[in-house]
Amino acid sequence: MDQLISKKDIEAAHERIRPYIHRTPVMTSQSINDYAGCSLFFKCENFQNVGAFKARGAMNAALSLTPDQLRKGLATHSSGNHAQALARAGKILGVKTYIVMPRTAPEIKKRGVKSYGGEIFECEPTLADREKTLAAVIEKTGACEIHPFNNYEVMTGQATAAKELFEDVEKLDYLLVPVGGGGMLSGTALAAYYFSPQTNVIAGEPAGSDDAYRSLKSGKIEQAQSQSIADGLLTSLGDKAFPIIKQFVKEVITVTDEEIIFAMRMIWERMKIIVEPSCAVPFAAVLKSKDKFQGKRVGIILSGGNVDLNKMGKFFST
Amino acid sequence: MDQLISKKDIEAAHERIRPYIHRTPVMTSQSINDYAGCSLFFKCENFQNVGAFKARGAMNAALSLTPDQLRKGLATHSSGNHAQALARAGKILGVKTYIVMPRTAPEIKKRGVKSYGGEIFECEPTLADREKTLAAVIEKTGACEIHPFNNYEVMTGQATAAKELFEDVEKLDYLLVPVGGGGMLSGTALAAYYFSPQTNVIAGEPAGSDDAYRSLKSGKIEQAQSQSIADGLLTSLGDKAFPIIKQFVKEVITVTDEEIIFAMRMIWERMKIIVEPSCAVPFAAVLKSKDKFQGKRVGIILSGGNVDLNKMGKFFST
Repeated sequence: MDQLISKKDIEAAHERIRPYIHRTPVMTSQSINDYAGCSLFFKCENFQNVGAFKARGAMNAALSLTPDQLRKGLATHSSGNHAQALARAGKILGVKTYIVMPRTAPEIKKRGVKSYGGEIFECEPTLADREKTLAAVIEKTGACEIHPFNNYEVMTGQATAAKELFEDVEKLDYLLVPVGGGGMLSGTALAAYYFSPQTNVIAGEPAGSDDAYRSLKSGKIEQAQSQSIADGLLTSLGDKAFPIIKQFVKEVITVTDEEIIFAMRMIWERMKIIVEPSCAVPFAAVLKSKDKFQGKRVGIILSGGNVDLNKMGKFFST
Repeated sequence: MDQLISKKDIEAAHERIRPYIHRTPVMTSQSINDYAGCSLFFKCENFQNVGAFKARGAMNAALSLTPDQLRKGLATHSSGNHAQALARAGKILGVKTYIVMPRTAPEIKKRGVKSYGGEIFECEPTLADREKTLAAVIEKTGACEIHPFNNYEVMTGQATAAKELFEDVEKLDYLLVPVGGGGMLSGTALAAYYFSPQTNVIAGEPAGSDDAYRSLKSGKIEQAQSQSIADGLLTSLGDKAFPIIKQFVKEVITVTDEEIIFAMRMIWERMKIIVEPSCAVPFAAVLKSKDKFQGKRVGIILSGGNVDLNKMGKFFST
C-alpha cells in the first residue's frame, strides 16, 4: 500500500535538517563483537545535538511549519530529549518554546531546555496531566504543538538516522532501535523499506512497559505501564506510528531492567561512551537473543546519552 | 642539541605500531568551546586499544625487541593502563607477560590484564615494593622489563598520538597532556618540536602530586606525593624523560581534585564520552587558566577511559 511518508519525504527531510544536525559516527568494538557473537554497528546518536536523535524530528517538524504557524511559538510535552530538541529548534528559528515536563524528569534535561531558552511548565508524571497542562499552555499562548512522536514530520525526521546508517554500513541483516511512542521505530522501519529492504527492523522494549510487544500481538494499541529505568520508553504507541509498525516490524524483544543495566554498563566500559538507560535497550535485546543474531551484521541506533550522573551510582554499585 | 629520539624514530615507531593500534578520532564540542572560551580539539585516546594511549608505547617497545629478548616474556610494574597495554602486546606477539600491580589498582584494570592472559603479581602500593616485587619476578622468569615510562621506545611510541593530532588539526597554539612519569609528556614535546614547532606543549598535573611542577622549578627530579584521585599520575618523572621535559616544556599547570572532578564531569555530560580522572587533568588546567587560552586553538590528549564505575557514585553524588 502507499505510505503516508514517502521515500522522497525522508530524502527531503534529510536535506532540510542537514545544516542543523550532526552526521553522527558509527562505532564498532571488537571486544563487544566477540562477546555478542555478531558484528555490531552502533550509530551514535548520543553524540547528536542535544545528546539524542530527537534533534532530527523536532528540527524537521519546526522547519516544515509556515511563518504564520511558527509566529506564536512552539509547544510540547516531553519527559526529556524531545523537550530539549524542540527548545533548540525554537532557538535556531528565533521563536519561543513552551515545554510541559513531568516534575520527575531528570534535572539534566530540564537544564538543557532552559539553556536553549525554553520555558518549562511542570506537571504530574501522568499522560492525563501532561495533556491537560499542555492544552492550557496552548490556549494561553497560541503556540503550535509539536508532539514528541505522533507527528508525521517528527517521524520523518527520525527516519534520517537509519538512512545515514544504511549509507555508511552496507548489508545489515538487522537494525534494532528502542520503542517508546514509536516515532523512531516507525521512521526506521520506513527507512529500511525504502533504503535497505534486506534489513529486518526489530524493536527493543523494557519488559516493565511492554505495550508495543502486546500491541503487535493484539493488533491494537495497548496501554503502557511505567515500570522501568528506561525513562524515555514509558509511553504507548502513537496512532500515526502504529499502522507502520504493524506493517513493517515483525518482532519486539523485551528486556528486564537488570538486562538493560548490564548492557548499558558494557557499552560504558568497553566503548567508553555514555548512553542513557533507554538507549541500551536494543543492545540488551541482542544479548538476550544471541542465537538469533549469531554471525549476522547488526545495526543499533544508540538513541541518546543524557543521563543524570548523580543517579548513576545506584546502577553501578555492585 | 641532538635528541636521543629523532624525528625518524617517531615516524618509524608510527609505521611499526600502525597495524596494532587505532587511529583515534579528534572530537570537538561547541558547548565546551563556548564555556572555555577557546577552540578545543580532543584526541580521544580513551578509544584506543586497552582504553588508553599506553597501547602505543608498550607495542612499540615490544616490537623493538629481538626474538631472543622476547623469548622469556615481558615484565613490568604498573598501576593499570601500561599493565593492560603490555599484556596485550605480549598476547599479540605470542609471549608471556608478568605484571606487578599494586593491590589497590582498579579492579577493571586487573580484569583487563587477565583478559589478555597476563599473570598478575600483587604488591604494596609503594614504588619500593613495586620495584622489589618486579626484581624478584624477573630473577625467577628471565623476562625482559618494559618500564611504563622510563624507556626510550615507550616514550617514542607515546609521541605518535600527538603526531596524529598534528596531522588531523592544523595550527594548534597549545597542546596539553597529563604528566605522571613523563612518558607521554616527553614524547608529545618531541612530537611538537619535530612536527608542529609553533605549538606550545603544557602539562596538567594534580596539585596533590605536583612533582613535575616542582622539578621544573628546581631543575632536578623531585619526589611525587600520592594525594589525588588522578591515580595514573602519582609517579615521579623518569630520568630519561626529564631532560626532554626541561628543554621543551615551559609550563606545568596544577589542579585540585575538585577541579579534576568538575572537568571530568563536563566531558562526560557534554561530550558523552568516558574519561578517567587522570585524563581530565589537562582540560581542568585549561578551565583554570581560561585567560591564557582565550581565543586560541588548543589540543588536548584524552589519555584514557578506564574508570571503575563502581566508584563513580562518590564523585557524582552532589
